[in-house]
Amino acid sequence: MTTTEALRELLPEGRVFDDPDVLAAHSRDRATFCPAGTPAALVRARSTEDVSAVLRWANEHGVAVVPQGARSGLSGAGNALDGCVLLSLEKMDAIIGIDPEEQVAVVQPGVINGALAAAVAERGLFYPPDPGSRSISTIGGNVSTNAGGMCCVKYGVTGDFVRGLEVVLADGRVMRTGRRTAKGVAGYDLTRLMVGAEGTLGVVTEVTLSLRPASAQPLTAVAFFPELADSARTVSGFLAEGHRPSVLEFMDASSVKAVQQIADLGFPEGMAAMLLVQSDLGDAAPAELAAFEKVATAMGAAEVVVSDSVAEGEMLMQARRLVGDAHEKLGKALLIDDVCVPRRRLEEMVTGLKRVEAEHRVQVLCAGHAGDGNMHPVVAFDESDADETARAHQAFDAIMALGLELGGTITGEHGVGQLKRDWLGRELDEAGLSTSHAIKRALDPNDILNPGRVLPEAS
Amino acid sequence: MTTTEALRELLPEGRVFDDPDVLAAHSRDRATFCPAGTPAALVRARSTEDVSAVLRWANEHGVAVVPQGARSGLSGAGNALDGCVLLSLEKMDAIIGIDPEEQVAVVQPGVINGALAAAVAERGLFYPPDPGSRSISTIGGNVSTNAGGMCCVKYGVTGDFVRGLEVVLADGRVMRTGRRTAKGVAGYDLTRLMVGAEGTLGVVTEVTLSLRPASAQPLTAVAFFPELADSARTVSGFLAEGHRPSVLEFMDASSVKAVQQIADLGFPEGMAAMLLVQSDLGDAAPAELAAFEKVATAMGAAEVVVSDSVAEGEMLMQARRLVGDAHEKLGKALLIDDVCVPRRRLEEMVTGLKRVEAEHRVQVLCAGHAGDGNMHPVVAFDESDADETARAHQAFDAIMALGLELGGTITGEHGVGQLKRDWLGRELDEAGLSTSHAIKRALDPNDILNPGRVLPEAS
Repeated sequence: MTTTEALRELLPEGRVFDDPDVLAAHSRDRATFCPAGTPAALVRARSTEDVSAVLRWANEHGVAVVPQGARSGLSGAGNALDGCVLLSLEKMDAIIGIDPEEQVAVVQPGVINGALAAAVAERGLFYPPDPGSRSISTIGGNVSTNAGGMCCVKYGVTGDFVRGLEVVLADGRVMRTGRRTAKGVAGYDLTRLMVGAEGTLGVVTEVTLSLRPASAQPLTAVAFFPELADSARTVSGFLAEGHRPSVLEFMDASSVKAVQQIADLGFPEGMAAMLLVQSDLGDAAPAELAAFEKVATAMGAAEVVVSDSVAEGEMLMQARRLVGDAHEKLGKALLIDDVCVPRRRLEEMVTGLKRVEAEHRVQVLCAGHAGDGNMHPVVAFDESDADETARAHQAFDAIMALGLELGGTITGEHGVGQLKRDWLGRELDEAGLSTSHAIKRALDPNDILNPGRVLPEAS
Repeated sequence: MTTTEALRELLPEGRVFDDPDVLAAHSRDRATFCPAGTPAALVRARSTEDVSAVLRWANEHGVAVVPQGARSGLSGAGNALDGCVLLSLEKMDAIIGIDPEEQVAVVQPGVINGALAAAVAERGLFYPPDPGSRSISTIGGNVSTNAGGMCCVKYGVTGDFVRGLEVVLADGRVMRTGRRTAKGVAGYDLTRLMVGAEGTLGVVTEVTLSLRPASAQPLTAVAFFPELADSARTVSGFLAEGHRPSVLEFMDASSVKAVQQIADLGFPEGMAAMLLVQSDLGDAAPAELAAFEKVATAMGAAEVVVSDSVAEGEMLMQARRLVGDAHEKLGKALLIDDVCVPRRRLEEMVTGLKRVEAEHRVQVLCAGHAGDGNMHPVVAFDESDADETARAHQAFDAIMALGLELGGTITGEHGVGQLKRDWLGRELDEAGLSTSHAIKRALDPNDILNPGRVLPEAS
């Protein structure tokens, strides 16, 4: 019996797909240059019972299962493996409940981040985690990568908002973790163990999220710097004064230029970097932005624009949000990195990228969540040129090496997946790696849950 | 060779103690009615190497190790086991560094919470977690229980501030978890797995903590309610309006009365409950307290006092902080509970306590972190009366059952330890329990790390 036949016996009608075109369309997330195999079947789960049935069967038969949300991930954790079952959670997309009094939402994993944010906003609430993919990515995917975004500098990452989960374990059993209450310390933190595990320890089928009261509409300022290092020093200098902006983003000259080509925002010419800051402090927002202006000017900004209009601020934010599209429009192949460094090392990070660019003779663009020290350097290269492609991969690696050297991490929010699993072996120490492997073996002894992702080969 | 002799061979001089009086003095934390065994030795570790040597030896010889901080815990996780090594981290009490620019502190586990809070305040920073024990409890203990406190309603619990750890594993290997950066998702969240594990998965030897900029000095209000239920409804009603007070505490009539007996604060007579709220919003604090006054009055408060003086506010906070001492001064034995419920169920919680009191004919006092739904009901009873003692234990159990029934947890911040391990089996489902046991076996296969704590017997 084939995998498809076996799954069709187990599951209600309309769940199992094996049309080659459908499978091919579901075989990759958005990571570039990550190998993808040929899946045996795609299951579109519609209930926890569906997920449970698939895992129980896969565990008994030693078949790999790759959980998928919107396949918007950037690390290859959603890519197919040869002969695997692709387990899509996209159709489990119900917002089960929003509780304004308790400030909690309960959702299925396939809910789109932006849809949830909009639904809670209608109730006067705020779900802060806002990955760049928010209009397409799912909460389940956000949980599985512990996704970040622009609001994290003030409000924290996805994991900070996850109170509890329903998770299907490798053998198909259903586990509830965490709590519905504001606090709780009953037993090991299985919730946080699942957050960011990229589907290698269990499949998330329900998420209980903390919400916040709505914040005030933010005001926005942008600063332009002739010198790259000055922009980095402004970030650490401003935050060290004790300010907590709701957004603090960085764009280098190449990124600003790329954005200007798809939306002319009239930004000044000849600048090396731009910072974008928002304050959602309401009446106190102008003072926070004035403090930013003061620091930026002292550090060497050539121009600082403080907007007193929410609409104009939204337009400036749009410039930042367009960076991904703008990079893609360059018509080159892209390798997107995700290093995060201590803020005071940002200066060395951004200037170091220039060295990487020169040394490996490939273009390196950079934008990122400067307030968190989380940068997304992008190596752009001509894929038809084998030598340039090789140099691009070297540059990509050099960026991670630089991040580690500066006391940082290889991934601030995109996850390890397949793309960086060997690099995880360089970031963790031997005890951390072997503990991680021990946990994986304990929870998934037959190694069916997204095998080969996150953890490097055991030594 | 005895345990003491073996350890003295392994460790530098002045580390190993076996004087029976010293051992007896270190055999218990502050949990009442938790059995404690007779330890073989006490080790006062002074370095990670000391901890590593003890665990390596204990793991080889199958000797139980009970890690201890200040022994201020309330769940018996620090109590001696027969023949165990008590491993005290109290002498590892260095603040290794405070980095104002990066807003990070690195500390050894024996640092007292209040000492750290004071040290970072001197640098213009804020370490929010403030358990009631803060003047005596250690950061290592706070991490191991994921301790809370009064500031948590706005700022979160200990775990929310832990970026990374150095942990000695059961076999003596040293592991670094987490990151120094604001964000990071490289691999499984081993940091959070250790937080709240009460020394059953590893021994924490260094902690990297996030700090915040200092907040404004808070202003304070108190409200007095003739009806218990009205105080609970005020809590959920006020928070549902979107306010984020920095403190929102509850005291019942018996607790207020007990406090008045050690410090007469001139509180009105005949009230059923008191709420205490603080706002640290600076210029916006008076408006937040006015909103509280409005809700409290609408809900039936007989008197609301809004203080415009920081000093007077500190005096009112003192009343709340004295509750523990005041309860002890009643001259009765106390069983301290720690249930946490969804905020809208607080009304049922506090009125339910009155039923428990009547049904089991023991006094039940209550104070707690109302804004988090985290209540500390205290059963006070005459220990010389066997029948009353039995009823007190029944009441203690009835309170946890009530918490679970209301959708809550058996422990909001004190931990499971020995006191509530059987109850953990009622809170977690079968899959959660077996997953927790699998993790414990994977990380501590010889079961030497605080064995028998947290997890109930495997079924």
